[in-house]
Amino acid sequence: MTHVSQIINATVTDVRFPTSLELDGSDAVNVDPDYSAAYLHLQTDEGPDGHALVFTGGRGNEVVAAAIESAVRLLPNEDLETMLGHLGYVSDRLVHDSQFRWIGPEKGASHMAAGAVVNALWDIKAKRAGLPLWELLARMAPEELVEAVDFSHLRDAITEDEALAIFTDGQQGKEERIAELKEHGFPAYTTSAGWLGYSDEKMQRLAREAVDEGFGLIKLKVGGSLEDDVRRMKLARETVGPDVPIAIDANQKWEVHEAADWINALAPFDVYWVEEPTSPDDVLGHARIRGEIAPIKVATGEAVQNRIIFKQLLQAEAIDIMQIDSTRVAGPNENLANMLLAKKFGIPVCPHAGGVGLCELVVHFSFVDYAIISTSQEGRVIEFVDHLHEHFVSPVSVVNGRYRAPTAPGNGAEMFPASVQQWAYPQGQGWLDLFESGAFQRP
Amino acid sequence: MTHVSQIINATVTDVRFPTSLELDGSDAVNVDPDYSAAYLHLQTDEGPDGHALVFTGGRGNEVVAAAIESAVRLLPNEDLETMLGHLGYVSDRLVHDSQFRWIGPEKGASHMAAGAVVNALWDIKAKRAGLPLWELLARMAPEELVEAVDFSHLRDAITEDEALAIFTDGQQGKEERIAELKEHGFPAYTTSAGWLGYSDEKMQRLAREAVDEGFGLIKLKVGGSLEDDVRRMKLARETVGPDVPIAIDANQKWEVHEAADWINALAPFDVYWVEEPTSPDDVLGHARIRGEIAPIKVATGEAVQNRIIFKQLLQAEAIDIMQIDSTRVAGPNENLANMLLAKKFGIPVCPHAGGVGLCELVVHFSFVDYAIISTSQEGRVIEFVDHLHEHFVSPVSVVNGRYRAPTAPGNGAEMFPASVQQWAYPQGQGWLDLFESGAFQRP
Repeated sequence: MTHVSQIINATVTDVRFPTSLELDGSDAVNVDPDYSAAYLHLQTDEGPDGHALVFTGGRGNEVVAAAIESAVRLLPNEDLETMLGHLGYVSDRLVHDSQFRWIGPEKGASHMAAGAVVNALWDIKAKRAGLPLWELLARMAPEELVEAVDFSHLRDAITEDEALAIFTDGQQGKEERIAELKEHGFPAYTTSAGWLGYSDEKMQRLAREAVDEGFGLIKLKVGGSLEDDVRRMKLARETVGPDVPIAIDANQKWEVHEAADWINALAPFDVYWVEEPTSPDDVLGHARIRGEIAPIKVATGEAVQNRIIFKQLLQAEAIDIMQIDSTRVAGPNENLANMLLAKKFGIPVCPHAGGVGLCELVVHFSFVDYAIISTSQEGRVIEFVDHLHEHFVSPVSVVNGRYRAPTAPGNGAEMFPASVQQWAYPQGQGWLDLFESGAFQRP
Repeated sequence: MTHVSQIINATVTDVRFPTSLELDGSDAVNVDPDYSAAYLHLQTDEGPDGHALVFTGGRGNEVVAAAIESAVRLLPNEDLETMLGHLGYVSDRLVHDSQFRWIGPEKGASHMAAGAVVNALWDIKAKRAGLPLWELLARMAPEELVEAVDFSHLRDAITEDEALAIFTDGQQGKEERIAELKEHGFPAYTTSAGWLGYSDEKMQRLAREAVDEGFGLIKLKVGGSLEDDVRRMKLARETVGPDVPIAIDANQKWEVHEAADWINALAPFDVYWVEEPTSPDDVLGHARIRGEIAPIKVATGEAVQNRIIFKQLLQAEAIDIMQIDSTRVAGPNENLANMLLAKKFGIPVCPHAGGVGLCELVVHFSFVDYAIISTSQEGRVIEFVDHLHEHFVSPVSVVNGRYRAPTAPGNGAEMFPASVQQWAYPQGQGWLDLFESGAFQRP
């Protein structure tokens, strides 16, 4: 009799890091984030376990953790092999559960939670195959990939047949691209210099270092005060010279009708893209702003709730750059849909990363995008922030401004148990020490 | 020394009713809802307590309950009088908390939870004033109302000044309209006949009864099978005659490009509006469908996550009718914004209700809409479903097809403690009995 393997336990931990102490990650809207992860460990009775996380800004991490526990209970009553062989079906069960969907649908805490559960299964699947997630996806048959994607409410923009054609075209030259990725990696850019909480001197020093380290684009946070933004943008441009693209990021700060004036005031210093100029929900607003600031590009996506908003951003010609996030949507399945949309509409994918674990997770998507979807690196960069990588079993590596190819099997989400234990909130020793010292109040 | 009153405790209960046993509320997407409420009781040290709820479909109610507990912790450290005097400020603290917002922003479980906390404070404010919420709002000064509304990311469509002008205009004839509402109430329509799980005979009998009871519009759920929909629509039309408007509701079932064919196949039986033809996130999709099915009206809103999506639905001329929901958005504050938008764009508000408690809560919005915002009842109806009202301390009353004016002080959300206890999930006696009988599995 064949042994049938099962998931035997699911543990969800509220892990938080006290990053607000340093103003790392501060911007016009996220003024004091404590980078956090609602962290899922799916234990199996044999073979590798699965891991996944949802990034959050601190408060609210406990809500996502609760939602992940609920989403785990929605897994179909199937053995592990069956689930791993039909991850489109599993995603469908979680994302479209007839009761659970009310609290989205397909957005917010419940949607991110469904994504984490699906992603932990992808982690198991990749580890069983002995492949990093990007390479597992790149080596799956086009038909299998199409089966994994949820096309619901997308079919007026892209159909299963069109997706199959994209994946099939992507088979040509695939081995060469995989080899190239393993040899040369993928371009990165950095936001490390640009946080609003940093002094001008620190910003300039970090910008200079970024260019020296080979990053081909840097990014400044804007939207606090126009006077400050003009000064910082001017200083940054003087620091990096005329040839390094500088992007700006308003983190949703502006009203639709006021964005263009602010952005155009920075235009003399050559702005490459403006990111999140207004609410991530505002498709029409992005389209209007894009029309008012051309040729400056519009980028968004880290807070775009699902593929249906991305579809509209593309249909409305509202963005020049799609910034997928690895833990905002319903796992690799939905990010495949997003990347297919970007390919169909001819828009580059430049993923959002940073926070905690987002670099580790999102790198897999750009790699598979290049291997079998867009098949191009032109105008494509992955965000990189050098924070908190030390907590990951297989941290990303960025050398000479390029992400190296992940080689460890899995999706990149696995953290060291000691880190999870130390920073479990509020009971981990890291937090107990901070409460004791008075740096943080006990919840 | 003046006594300063405080909130001294917040209790959140996961309350569920086993409605899936009866197929009440079944539609093409919500096939088996257990109507549920994440129920908040804010206890004060003197004077009335506050109550609020978020409606859900069953599974996931525990996530919203957890989110409400988190949202309560975001309340500013102020005495109760200060909070009740500045509910716009309180809403801002909850909705835009710099960390909590990541898991929305302004959508899904966290947003509904913020709305519940704000609404419970409105409940206290109304009870202290001895007024039903609608009348409290109708009697507030225009400036106070404007201060309560969150205009962020709305100002390209409506400004504070425009809102002030609307509320100020609404003062004229207000007393007459309030008196009229108290005397004659507000028109209702019913979905009771139209659930997909009902037999043709039951549907026809209930449709006939609805017309006899004075309801001016009935609604059928559609989207399961076209053949069934054509048969049911034909039977319903034969039953109610040519003069009663029949609306249809697809509950988000269709792809954008397939909706028009389905709807137009039902057009020979005279469809008044089609509700939720596709994803509630799809502004452009609604606009396309509306263009393809005119003169049939497009209605949506029960799953519209916030005011920013409503703004776009209006800007894109994508809807004919705005169906606000009482517990989807951030409380009365955000529904005031939605109703102001509807007024600005000349679109009637016909609220979604049903579920558990939604009639009790939403009636207040149509009443204040008539008193001081739209000042019209033309083309306006509030949904009514005759379910689960017996659990509410001040249930709505519908007579001759019209909602009577709520007269009890408060927002309508307060439930009987015995009901809350009986149907607390999973530990209430109602559920223990169902587990015992085998009708439901223990979670």
